[in-house]
Amino acid sequence: MLSPISEEKVFKDPVHNYIHVQDDMIWRLINTPEFQRLRRVRQLGTSYLTFHGAEHSRFSHSLGVYEITRKIISQFERRGYTDWPMDERMVALCAALLHDLGHGPFSHSVEEAFDMDHEDWTCRIVLGDTCVNEVLREAGDDFPEKVASVIRKTYDKPIVMNLVTSPLDADRMDYLLRDAYYTGVNYGTIDIDRILRLLRPFRDRIVVKESGMHAVEDYLMSRYQMYWQVYFHPVTRSSEIILRQIFRRAKELHSQGYRFKFMIEPLPSLFEGSLSVRQYLQLDEALIQTAFLQWTAEEDKQLSELCGRFMHRKLYKYVEFDMMDESFIDDIREAFRQAGLHPEYDLAIDFPTDLPYDRFHSGMPSSEKQILLLDRHDQLREISEVSEIVRSISGIHQGRYHLYFPAEKVKDALDRMPKHITDIFRQSL
Amino acid sequence: MLSPISEEKVFKDPVHNYIHVQDDMIWRLINTPEFQRLRRVRQLGTSYLTFHGAEHSRFSHSLGVYEITRKIISQFERRGYTDWPMDERMVALCAALLHDLGHGPFSHSVEEAFDMDHEDWTCRIVLGDTCVNEVLREAGDDFPEKVASVIRKTYDKPIVMNLVTSPLDADRMDYLLRDAYYTGVNYGTIDIDRILRLLRPFRDRIVVKESGMHAVEDYLMSRYQMYWQVYFHPVTRSSEIILRQIFRRAKELHSQGYRFKFMIEPLPSLFEGSLSVRQYLQLDEALIQTAFLQWTAEEDKQLSELCGRFMHRKLYKYVEFDMMDESFIDDIREAFRQAGLHPEYDLAIDFPTDLPYDRFHSGMPSSEKQILLLDRHDQLREISEVSEIVRSISGIHQGRYHLYFPAEKVKDALDRMPKHITDIFRQSL
Amino acid sequence: MLSPISEEKVFKDPVHNYIHVQDDMIWRLINTPEFQRLRRVRQLGTSYLTFHGAEHSRFSHSLGVYEITRKIISQFERRGYTDWPMDERMVALCAALLHDLGHGPFSHSVEEAFDMDHEDWTCRIVLGDTCVNEVLREAGDDFPEKVASVIRKTYDKPIVMNLVTSPLDADRMDYLLRDAYYTGVNYGTIDIDRILRLLRPFRDRIVVKESGMHAVEDYLMSRYQMYWQVYFHPVTRSSEIILRQIFRRAKELHSQGYRFKFMIEPLPSLFEGSLSVRQYLQLDEALIQTAFLQWTAEEDKQLSELCGRFMHRKLYKYVEFDMMDESFIDDIREAFRQAGLHPEYDLAIDFPTDLPYDRFHSGMPSSEKQILLLDRHDQLREISEVSEIVRSISGIHQGRYHLYFPAEKVKDALDRMPKHITDIFRQSL
Amino acid sequence: MLSPISEEKVFKDPVHNYIHVQDDMIWRLINTPEFQRLRRVRQLGTSYLTFHGAEHSRFSHSLGVYEITRKIISQFERRGYTDWPMDERMVALCAALLHDLGHGPFSHSVEEAFDMDHEDWTCRIVLGDTCVNEVLREAGDDFPEKVASVIRKTYDKPIVMNLVTSPLDADRMDYLLRDAYYTGVNYGTIDIDRILRLLRPFRDRIVVKESGMHAVEDYLMSRYQMYWQVYFHPVTRSSEIILRQIFRRAKELHSQGYRFKFMIEPLPSLFEGSLSVRQYLQLDEALIQTAFLQWTAEEDKQLSELCGRFMHRKLYKYVEFDMMDESFIDDIREAFRQAGLHPEYDLAIDFPTDLPYDRFHSGMPSSEKQILLLDRHDQLREISEVSEIVRSISGIHQGRYHLYFPAEKVKDALDRMPKHITDIFRQSL
Repeated sequence: MLSPISEEKVFKDPVHNYIHVQDDMIWRLINTPEFQRLRRVRQLGTSYLTFHGAEHSRFSHSLGVYEITRKIISQFERRGYTDWPMDERMVALCAALLHDLGHGPFSHSVEEAFDMDHEDWTCRIVLGDTCVNEVLREAGDDFPEKVASVIRKTYDKPIVMNLVTSPLDADRMDYLLRDAYYTGVNYGTIDIDRILRLLRPFRDRIVVKESGMHAVEDYLMSRYQMYWQVYFHPVTRSSEIILRQIFRRAKELHSQGYRFKFMIEPLPSLFEGSLSVRQYLQLDEALIQTAFLQWTAEEDKQLSELCGRFMHRKLYKYVEFDMMDESFIDDIREAFRQAGLHPEYDLAIDFPTDLPYDRFHSGMPSSEKQILLLDRHDQLREISEVSEIVRSISGIHQGRYHLYFPAEKVKDALDRMPKHITDIFRQSL
Repeated sequence: MLSPISEEKVFKDPVHNYIHVQDDMIWRLINTPEFQRLRRVRQLGTSYLTFHGAEHSRFSHSLGVYEITRKIISQFERRGYTDWPMDERMVALCAALLHDLGHGPFSHSVEEAFDMDHEDWTCRIVLGDTCVNEVLREAGDDFPEKVASVIRKTYDKPIVMNLVTSPLDADRMDYLLRDAYYTGVNYGTIDIDRILRLLRPFRDRIVVKESGMHAVEDYLMSRYQMYWQVYFHPVTRSSEIILRQIFRRAKELHSQGYRFKFMIEPLPSLFEGSLSVRQYLQLDEALIQTAFLQWTAEEDKQLSELCGRFMHRKLYKYVEFDMMDESFIDDIREAFRQAGLHPEYDLAIDFPTDLPYDRFHSGMPSSEKQILLLDRHDQLREISEVSEIVRSISGIHQGRYHLYFPAEKVKDALDRMPKHITDIFRQSL
Repeated sequence: MLSPISEEKVFKDPVHNYIHVQDDMIWRLINTPEFQRLRRVRQLGTSYLTFHGAEHSRFSHSLGVYEITRKIISQFERRGYTDWPMDERMVALCAALLHDLGHGPFSHSVEEAFDMDHEDWTCRIVLGDTCVNEVLREAGDDFPEKVASVIRKTYDKPIVMNLVTSPLDADRMDYLLRDAYYTGVNYGTIDIDRILRLLRPFRDRIVVKESGMHAVEDYLMSRYQMYWQVYFHPVTRSSEIILRQIFRRAKELHSQGYRFKFMIEPLPSLFEGSLSVRQYLQLDEALIQTAFLQWTAEEDKQLSELCGRFMHRKLYKYVEFDMMDESFIDDIREAFRQAGLHPEYDLAIDFPTDLPYDRFHSGMPSSEKQILLLDRHDQLREISEVSEIVRSISGIHQGRYHLYFPAEKVKDALDRMPKHITDIFRQSL
Repeated sequence: MLSPISEEKVFKDPVHNYIHVQDDMIWRLINTPEFQRLRRVRQLGTSYLTFHGAEHSRFSHSLGVYEITRKIISQFERRGYTDWPMDERMVALCAALLHDLGHGPFSHSVEEAFDMDHEDWTCRIVLGDTCVNEVLREAGDDFPEKVASVIRKTYDKPIVMNLVTSPLDADRMDYLLRDAYYTGVNYGTIDIDRILRLLRPFRDRIVVKESGMHAVEDYLMSRYQMYWQVYFHPVTRSSEIILRQIFRRAKELHSQGYRFKFMIEPLPSLFEGSLSVRQYLQLDEALIQTAFLQWTAEEDKQLSELCGRFMHRKLYKYVEFDMMDESFIDDIREAFRQAGLHPEYDLAIDFPTDLPYDRFHSGMPSSEKQILLLDRHDQLREISEVSEIVRSISGIHQGRYHLYFPAEKVKDALDRMPKHITDIFRQSL
């Protein structure tokens, strides 16, 4: 059942050069409709509106995560490390390949808007009546559950989970490299070959040889830079805000019985929170973009305007603040209301925070969220004990407060607002 | 009207590092809904099914073509070449930026299926009642027509057309670099800085300094390699064949009055050949993919099966032949028919040809399809006169004949076909 | 006299792609014997013994520094910034090109061994009876002195010095990129185009637009990583130690009247500290390596053995310590002495420290050693006020203590040393 | 004796990222003085005078050749190809690592000037009283001879020789990639991973799977471009001509009993053709450059001037011709003589030819100089039968004739030469 394929197959990949498929099961999982759907879900959601090159899909990323995991395991096997459980290879590879299977279109925004969780959906697809499940079951009736439990972090082999999800896992390594490649920024160029060479299975964990400390520092710094320069870019945040407002408005209208000129399955079930696995798999970014483009002609002005903004990239402008308190925001909302603007659709507050590396996690000596260095005497040390650089980026990082708003509408309403409010916006109009 | 913008704006681009926007008009053209639509049209159509990284859009490419053109013109201006007409700068830049505006979704297949031409559509959008037209008209009522005439190659300044469309133009240079970058293949790595440095405006033409001969050879070889290794990849051709068959079947069903479970504007007008500019601009790859995914549930088996193949990447397999004559094909079609297979939907013949460089074009001494080298005595020589390499790739290049078919269906029908027919397919089943 | 050259000349460069020479004076400076000598002085001294790719010369680096400076000035001129003094262009370019002219072979070790200073020598060459001086004087009799005063930081236009020597200058940017390229490490990949675009002449300084903060952080982190992973690599330090001991021994022998089998001009004058400019220009790494290879056959065992170690890469091994006090070192030296080893030639202590960025320098509000960010209100802020990352790498960074020694000799002497001493070395033998 | 080393050692390499050393013998060969000497011999001889980045050594290249060979063999072993003789691994690896061991300083010029052959010297070093020989003998007394016979192509296992020296061998693949990397040109970017994946041991040969045809075309084209754009660059040829003339003059003077102000061992033996292995190993580029720099002060004007030209890069200028016959050259020489110029030192004719791929070699059906494609039916086809591109670059390629001369001296002599001679030079003065 678990047979190697006669001749290794390869995918040409710009990041890893080639992705090597050596097992028939991996090949067949890639060819399921559920996995192919990931081609229609962008890896970076709306970031392509900021970095036009960032049009790559979760399909590409998933192959990359699989490839890095395959390389790590091959190395463990070649070197004969006894702490790595050899018969966990396929579980680990399948979990690595499938870990993002449940991502929906514009995942973060959809999850926020409809209170969903992509990890749950991954498990539902892995365990449900799907082609993926069918392929996995060939390795045993309990095999899909094994894979799902790695993903939801309840598997009884901690080292497998630590390989697939940890602060230094294949997922993070691939997305740093891939997102840097496709956006064109220079920050994600980590020395992945070096890091891979220095990983060691050690008891229940994957740890790093002490001599890799600077390489790990560099990796954490790359991650930090990608967060602040790419993932949290204000233009991207602006587009995500508009996206969430579209979902919010459409859901509102649907619950009010509004008659949409255009509606398509399974959006009504999405609004009602009643999606089946089969329906969920219909959702992709093509469908969302198609609905939005059609909705630019809806009668509801709020919805049609927001959809026009998203589709034609007429995003909200923003102003930044170091501090911001509740009463200040209430003030602005009130001024907006009085000036005839909508206090919520026409105003959004955003406060990005990042946790590049969480050294204190749970206060536990060897939390799986820590990166551990292994010295020549087989002693482990948590990296921030040793590295001042890592300490400086540990813990929550806070950006500045951003206030997003539709520039033209606010401009038109300026003379209907008090001066201390209009001063806020004037610099950005 | 034609004002430089206060501070140069940049787009981060993986291929050119930064795209520099220095004119307000360019900035505003990029921000029109018509130009933003290009984000939803992939540069390489279905190639992402072969090279998963090739998910980049015509939006990215169009910015790249603009950037290369801008660099060439800046250099001409900086060096004060008198053969370059300085006041043609904006016409050339706009034509470069907009030359792909009329591309529809999966352009080549749609054009073939519905007998359309993207160049016509580009001109209709530039001249029609669109935001692009509105922005262009600020430079004069005849400005949109100037831009359109460069694109359709009727402008009265040949050197402008030669800059924008020639065998060594910004379009080709950008797509080689970009397609190589996103697919991850190595073949498109041309020394663009060197080529740009050696371009010279000379009378009515853009020519290359003689010392650039080897760089041009290398460029033509890259082009040749990209054609055979990427653009004509049999897996891509297979997906294009299925795409065309979907369009063909849908059009057939529409004309027969079939009631689609799912239909969306403006597909009926597309089938009827009656698209307006406004409707055309609704067409993008999101809409096509959405329709196809919905159609996997159509009652018409032919359509639903083909759509399933395309969306879930269950493509046709193929066999190759050095030669193939009509009667041979007729034989196979007849055998298919008798075995209960569809002689056209279940069988497609493909014969890719490429014309990397057409030295004999029109037999005219200085056809605009030729690449001319300029020696130190201001004499021009057509490159293939000098380069044996270029001669070897001049003229039509022919690949092998490919026969595409649905493997499982043909396999099931093998025992209903004569042996000389089944022998053809057996190697690939 | 200061004429642009008819057609721009270019050098192909792996780091900047092309180096553009637009002024006749620059072209002629590059072609002086003094500048060509830099081809025979490696940019990274002995680092090629650790990173075999690091065989690049100070000639390459000097061209790179010139090119970055040229780009910055061109941009200032193109944008018409009034704070940049336009007529300082040639002074700045010449200072950038020539700033490393006085580097000797294996510069840092030679400077330490013979108490010399490459900056002094640069000025002596610029001002002396040399071809470089002759070329410079064509721009005015005081022009060589202007260039020299920029280099020794006494020029009366602070902004020119700040451009050529500051924590964010062309020198540092080129060496990070170039050393990373030639060693093959990933750490030096800074977004130089972005940094250059955000530089502004502002009063007496070159400052950075506020939005470039993360790019500067990334640059400082790259610098930090290059120091600890490349420049301070223990294998490189080991080779530098041997180099210094060779110089020390040769000087000792020379002063004792030892008759060298092989001696070559101007080494005696080097040992005696009496080098003339003409003699200094005879010194290059070819000469040093030739002398060392010949000296492997000297009768003095200390010298011949050290030269063999350096030329055939039989370097000293090392052990590391977090702490080390004087008495501990004295103990070891004493044990060495008693065991028949040489307490200084057979033992060296190294303690690398780095000052990636010195925010407190002189406590002055706008020291030229600070990096200043310019906000939209034309306010300046020193970068470590804003960036936690920069704060974490500001001030002195300390590595660990390293003890270097000849492994075989120490191994042979182990049984003649007390156990608490031998324990130190055992792990590395 | 042939033991794997406990933990794999790596060298950081810009071209292959890491060089992996897995055998103790390889590690010890690298650390011999004979192999370390290759650090002082540049891979591209005088090319650094044209491409300043090309300062890399034969040491780097030799490691690269070893690494590619190691990858190929590992792949053969992993896939279990039976046509590959498993016990030839160490012979092949050692031959790959050591194949360039006999290269002298500025190898091609020295070989021409003194009628030597680096392959001979490699074998003499491998078989002589050297550290390399000592290490090799640990694998058996006949092991050095085995390695030498692979290098001189007399080994009785043709497949080993075909792996190490063939038109598609590790040597050529490494130098294309490496020389492109260090010069900075774009032409050498071959898809080495793809080529390696498609290599197959087949009977006595290493062949390429048919599907690799385009990748091999691309490799041969890269080779062609590197020859014409880098290796045969006229500036490099000019420096090689001067180099040869220096050697010629020095030898002449030595045989005439001229008293050199500076002389160094083993140059006299080199001039007399009596170098021992021990002496040969003293020769490196440091020694040659040191001698040349000292000789700039020799009394013999011919020698001192030529040395000045080489060391300070005052090279000969050149004019090009499509055709050139003997009588024409005789005419020029005569005119030179009469005008007081030296007919040989002041004039050199160069006619570069390249043989990118020799398909007709020996007319034999499977010459080891051919590249063979393996189809799915195990049939072999010589690549130029299938590829028009390869046919176009097969056979001898001829450049143009170049006439090199000292520009200033010829300029001064113009009025002493007949007009039909002066016309030749005027364009380049």
